[in-house]
Amino acid sequence: MRITLDAKDIPGKWYNIIPDLDFDVPPLMSSSGYPLSYHDLEPLAPSSIIDQELEREKRDIPIPKEIQAFYSEWRPTPLYRAERLEKSLETPARIFYKYEGYSPSGSHEMNTAVVQTYYAAQEESVKRIVTATGNGEWGASLAIACSYFGIQCQIYMVRSSYEEKPYGRYVMEVLGAEVIPSPSQKTRTGKKILEQTPNSPGSLSIALSEAFEEATIRDDIKFSWGTVMNHVLLHQTVIGLETRSQMRQAGAKPDLIICAVGGGSGLGGLAFPFYQDCKQRGTRTIAVETAAAPSLSKGRYAYDYGDTEGLFPLLKMYTLGHSFVPPGIRAGGMRYHGISPLVSALYREKQIEARAYAQGKAFEAAITFARTEGLIPSPEASYAVAAVIDEALACKQSKESKNILFLLDGNSNLDLTVFKDFVEGVIEDQPFPGENVQAALEELPEVSPP
Amino acid sequence: MRITLDAKDIPGKWYNIIPDLDFDVPPLMSSSGYPLSYHDLEPLAPSSIIDQELEREKRDIPIPKEIQAFYSEWRPTPLYRAERLEKSLETPARIFYKYEGYSPSGSHEMNTAVVQTYYAAQEESVKRIVTATGNGEWGASLAIACSYFGIQCQIYMVRSSYEEKPYGRYVMEVLGAEVIPSPSQKTRTGKKILEQTPNSPGSLSIALSEAFEEATIRDDIKFSWGTVMNHVLLHQTVIGLETRSQMRQAGAKPDLIICAVGGGSGLGGLAFPFYQDCKQRGTRTIAVETAAAPSLSKGRYAYDYGDTEGLFPLLKMYTLGHSFVPPGIRAGGMRYHGISPLVSALYREKQIEARAYAQGKAFEAAITFARTEGLIPSPEASYAVAAVIDEALACKQSKESKNILFLLDGNSNLDLTVFKDFVEGVIEDQPFPGENVQAALEELPEVSPP
Repeated sequence: MRITLDAKDIPGKWYNIIPDLDFDVPPLMSSSGYPLSYHDLEPLAPSSIIDQELEREKRDIPIPKEIQAFYSEWRPTPLYRAERLEKSLETPARIFYKYEGYSPSGSHEMNTAVVQTYYAAQEESVKRIVTATGNGEWGASLAIACSYFGIQCQIYMVRSSYEEKPYGRYVMEVLGAEVIPSPSQKTRTGKKILEQTPNSPGSLSIALSEAFEEATIRDDIKFSWGTVMNHVLLHQTVIGLETRSQMRQAGAKPDLIICAVGGGSGLGGLAFPFYQDCKQRGTRTIAVETAAAPSLSKGRYAYDYGDTEGLFPLLKMYTLGHSFVPPGIRAGGMRYHGISPLVSALYREKQIEARAYAQGKAFEAAITFARTEGLIPSPEASYAVAAVIDEALACKQSKESKNILFLLDGNSNLDLTVFKDFVEGVIEDQPFPGENVQAALEELPEVSPP
Repeated sequence: MRITLDAKDIPGKWYNIIPDLDFDVPPLMSSSGYPLSYHDLEPLAPSSIIDQELEREKRDIPIPKEIQAFYSEWRPTPLYRAERLEKSLETPARIFYKYEGYSPSGSHEMNTAVVQTYYAAQEESVKRIVTATGNGEWGASLAIACSYFGIQCQIYMVRSSYEEKPYGRYVMEVLGAEVIPSPSQKTRTGKKILEQTPNSPGSLSIALSEAFEEATIRDDIKFSWGTVMNHVLLHQTVIGLETRSQMRQAGAKPDLIICAVGGGSGLGGLAFPFYQDCKQRGTRTIAVETAAAPSLSKGRYAYDYGDTEGLFPLLKMYTLGHSFVPPGIRAGGMRYHGISPLVSALYREKQIEARAYAQGKAFEAAITFARTEGLIPSPEASYAVAAVIDEALACKQSKESKNILFLLDGNSNLDLTVFKDFVEGVIEDQPFPGENVQAALEELPEVSPP
């Protein structure tokens, strides 16, 4: 069952959670220990993006009409009730999912790509946007957004994904973006790593360092973040704002909100707009991680860099250490070493829960979902599906008809080899790399917040 | 700009064009020259499907409520005005496209897959649906529909696609369908061909023979058609019925309707519901073929088999001959030797036009479209885009602001290698194989219609 909204119901404002929090969120910090100001971030991002990143007082941030017009090319996205899945699980729970797969890139990342590109295109000096991507969903989203505005797009893509998971790359290249396998010879960071490790498969943290370096060198290039940062989560709140209206329409209040977390933008997008409802009703929010890189469950809450080389500002977050090299699990979006500062702070305050699953359990759940609902989830969303099925089966035991809401952040079109390998039995679970995490946590930067 | 409809605007009836035609459409024929009746088709398809295939009097065929509910999971689909493309072409023409890529399979083929599966699932004796697929979009659509009803799905897939274009296969297999590379050892047809040509790459006509053979042998298996047949075009009219409402909403009447044709279901779907308007307004409809297999432009209007082995009923259509082996062009859906009898009859009567393009021109147009609109068309729809751009540029010359409407039948997610190869310059045009067509036309069956 699909619960739809009219085009006129596209939100006119994003929701900034910070003014509603009953605790302080630590600021971005320089490596020398000073909170970062607008001025420090100016070379990196368009001015409106920096304003949004640093905004701590205004709850409602107006969405420019031009961006609303772009949103209206694929939004409002549908909310579904997964009745066929409920029936096959014989659960009294009602399962709802917000589906972001019907966007031009097939993923929720379009919601921020179009915003960051719009603001960059407004600034006359900006000729190019640069970013880093793992699997390619984020890079594809940014390449599509750049095609809207005729702005150049340059993407550092983790070399192993560039070679082994090429469909995301094909989208970017067909749209005219420049895609560079990372580590590359184009940056100092890349050269340094290739000297040490000529066959380096790369990682998102390395690709971020390269993209960041490129953006800081030239004035006509801006950097674009795919997740983690406050402004990205802000843009994604269109997801939850729409979902609130849709749940009201369905006459159901969520008892459980479940999201997979890689960088945290999906969770911020779906769950934050329900924040006040959660407090009033005792709705639980569960962040689902991969057991191979469980930042919340096994990381440390500390200031750390967002990238390998330490070029990024310092972020206060749950982290496995910026030098942590994650195992080669198949949900590329879940391999990052940290989690958004906002999600981290909420977890620290025990206002959200976390849970980690092995990839085998996640993909098994995804297959169950696909074979009843007819949609193959993204590898990342598969982790959320695993938690949803566990909770729905618990409801069967307890005879509770809870309303379970989760985010299906995208389809699997660029990642189908994952599921093909899974049904052929060639995907194995990756154990938690405890010793590597231990070593990486010892390399955390020493910072004394002011 | 997106022109949307509400969920309540999903059509309640399909549109059967036959009663509105001012000429007779030749019937399906047995190989011995008798028009086929309900009884002849009964072993193959569910009873409602046969009724729809043979219906010549009722204009409006009610869509069962249950199917409307499935349609509502992804319909109504959006109509877009391609303003960014118009601007880049500097054309006064207004370009509209109906986009079917936001369906669970990413293609318009879901519209009939769910109907055929629904009717099959209604018949208690039916345990399995069997079909043939080239690229995999049709097979993926049917596999998804079968997952809705928990019915088995068996798909003969052209061996060269099975090996070289596996993403469609992955979708089917992940959803639990049995996918068999064709020619196979499972059928008499397959065995015979493999004896003659052990390394046969297969063709859609061979795969159709195998699937058809399987369906005729067992009572609990029904065959499912992806295109060509009257009932498939009927189901696809939801596309055009929605588009009529959307064009009205946009305040624009189409002057030109443009569709790529492989089997003809897209054209039937979009253009047929505009049939009366076309007659009144002089709206032109253009069927765009590939120059490598141009059934309308270079074929003969004759009774021919729909499959290599001649197991199918005879169809009166423009055909290149059922033994014609098409060149290895990349839009797999355009390689079939014939065109739907309804589309063929309209072309015969000069009520639609035809035009053929080489694949290089089609894919170049697709890139132009993708880099302005941010959507990569299916390889098949790329041919329509080429005609649209030609017509829009003609409007620039003539300073006419025509309304051009075309079908973007799906996205390119399962077929991205095509465009990657094109931008890398490794795709060459395939010349029209005149001699092969000549030879195949000599093998047309001899039939005297009653």
